[in-house]
Amino acid sequence: MTVELAVRLGERSYPIYIGRGLIADSELLQKLIADRSVIIVSNEVVAPLYMGALVAHLKDRIKATILLPDGEEHKNLETLAVIFDQLVAAECDRSTLLIALGGGVVGDTAGFAAACYQRGIAFLQVPTTLLAQVDSSVGGKTAVNHPSGKNMIGAFYQPEAVIIDVDTLSSLNSRELAAGLAEVIKYGLIRDESFFAWLEDNIELLLSRDADALIYAIEHSCANKAEVVAADEREQGERALLNLGHTFGHAIETATEYSSWLHGEAVATGMLMAMSFSNRVGLLAEDRLQRAKKLIQRAGLPLAPPKHMNAEIFVKHMRHDKKVLGGTIRLILLRDIGDAFVSSDYNDERLTSELSAMLNE
Amino acid sequence: MTVELAVRLGERSYPIYIGRGLIADSELLQKLIADRSVIIVSNEVVAPLYMGALVAHLKDRIKATILLPDGEEHKNLETLAVIFDQLVAAECDRSTLLIALGGGVVGDTAGFAAACYQRGIAFLQVPTTLLAQVDSSVGGKTAVNHPSGKNMIGAFYQPEAVIIDVDTLSSLNSRELAAGLAEVIKYGLIRDESFFAWLEDNIELLLSRDADALIYAIEHSCANKAEVVAADEREQGERALLNLGHTFGHAIETATEYSSWLHGEAVATGMLMAMSFSNRVGLLAEDRLQRAKKLIQRAGLPLAPPKHMNAEIFVKHMRHDKKVLGGTIRLILLRDIGDAFVSSDYNDERLTSELSAMLNE
Repeated sequence: MTVELAVRLGERSYPIYIGRGLIADSELLQKLIADRSVIIVSNEVVAPLYMGALVAHLKDRIKATILLPDGEEHKNLETLAVIFDQLVAAECDRSTLLIALGGGVVGDTAGFAAACYQRGIAFLQVPTTLLAQVDSSVGGKTAVNHPSGKNMIGAFYQPEAVIIDVDTLSSLNSRELAAGLAEVIKYGLIRDESFFAWLEDNIELLLSRDADALIYAIEHSCANKAEVVAADEREQGERALLNLGHTFGHAIETATEYSSWLHGEAVATGMLMAMSFSNRVGLLAEDRLQRAKKLIQRAGLPLAPPKHMNAEIFVKHMRHDKKVLGGTIRLILLRDIGDAFVSSDYNDERLTSELSAMLNE
Repeated sequence: MTVELAVRLGERSYPIYIGRGLIADSELLQKLIADRSVIIVSNEVVAPLYMGALVAHLKDRIKATILLPDGEEHKNLETLAVIFDQLVAAECDRSTLLIALGGGVVGDTAGFAAACYQRGIAFLQVPTTLLAQVDSSVGGKTAVNHPSGKNMIGAFYQPEAVIIDVDTLSSLNSRELAAGLAEVIKYGLIRDESFFAWLEDNIELLLSRDADALIYAIEHSCANKAEVVAADEREQGERALLNLGHTFGHAIETATEYSSWLHGEAVATGMLMAMSFSNRVGLLAEDRLQRAKKLIQRAGLPLAPPKHMNAEIFVKHMRHDKKVLGGTIRLILLRDIGDAFVSSDYNDERLTSELSAMLNE
């Protein structure tokens, strides 16, 4: 059974397909690609696993395949330049379709390349990690990193379609699966209490990679994200809620130089920090915080930041996050499970003192 | 007297101001900039002439000024990376306003940097060459070059406003002024016969830099461009007409390695080639071609391509132009002065044979 969802963005609307075996679904591929010539961008780890199936169905139409090195450290302007060189070498024109096959790094980098090449060519997202399937492949945020900050250079650029084949999750290691679940749990926390309750009942099924449970969780995650993005494509307002845990999480990733924490792990801890903060300032009841902590723990995700990170280190890195607007650090806080909001009510001093108390508890 | 025009693009609509002394018009600057912090991107030649006036009015609000080296050869990914580094170093966030002060290279490069930095920050175009004032600053095309082709990497990204101060044209050398007039003449040729007739009557006034004549010519050029862009922002159809002369012109620029021909000069010759072609294939009457040739000559622009360029060289370079769609070279041809259209009716063989005959005439 293939689920189809729509991301409603007027002229830029597009479908998300979620199911099993979609990478080899020639009917679907034919419908989406028609007779266009194709460039596939993937990476050294994903390509040996899944590119064969895709290539088999498209063979005559493939102008080139571009393999990026694996890892977040290659999500930068240099890799982007390599993609441009290869698009030019393959004589890609505006009618060429780019297919991004891989995790978030491939999708973000290749998507940004598609956004810029000849001022924009069409592209399909084919995410192969849970994190990419429920988060980065949906909503049109593309980017590369700058040495001083994640996703500092990029574009809002929507794909033509997203193809989510849950069979690709069978090769994902457990730590990456858990990291993806952090973003799944996030949708429950920010706006969908009943989905959160479903996750409490089904987290073990997800960890054992039950296909139906995965399809359900991905569908509800993408549906939540699609609604938020449709309401606020360019992150002027509500879309900021999707950053729950991310401002704290980015500080953890930056302080650990993106080497030891996965993004989803940092987000999980960051969400708990945002909820602890919400609890400390009197917004969120203690039992809600404990419910979230228990689910995040069951998912195998970390509950606390690295010991060397004190409040000052957090605030310093949070100030460099690009979500800082005109000087005030904006926090995503919770009033309840399923009820997040944006707050600019806490200045650096207050933030530092509350964080300091939290970290010393 | 300041003229105000609107580029109508729904949510992305913006005004163009045309007049004298606008760079030092504190009321206008206050209205457009309000209390935002500002980054000015300019180049080594323009900054000493005009940045002082701008800086004097904005002093407290300037986070940094970024000076690019002068010249088309610096319109590339490396320069873009330097701008990103400086935006990061100045701690620019999403609320920072970027002002692009200079010619087309500055506007295209800085505009693309604004499009990408943190996925898009607001920017103002303050073009200081006639070419940039009537063409590149209006319509939201931003880009850098790739070694294999002009403007291969870029974005459609609209400025918040365009400020055209005709006093900046007093320092422009005559060759650059003439190159700008090529694009002015283009608007008459593609869609505005009465403007073309006005140009026939007033070309000497423009060459002598009469301010009122310049304001009139810039206003009518920008109004024509704004109408086309409003109808077709992303160049799916009508906007392609603005490329009259550009496909031939790009071939000249590429074949001469962007070293000896100015863009406007190549466009002027390219427009005549497109009209000669139109005449040869029976679309355009001979007297129309002669009228155009006479005006372009009076403007001091070149009438023929470099002697070493034969038909094969043209077609080879034209095939690499990014306006080639799915294999067919699209030509902008004329039925009459003021009546251009897009044609994909001529395959490489026919194009080569007609060009060969034209070049040997």
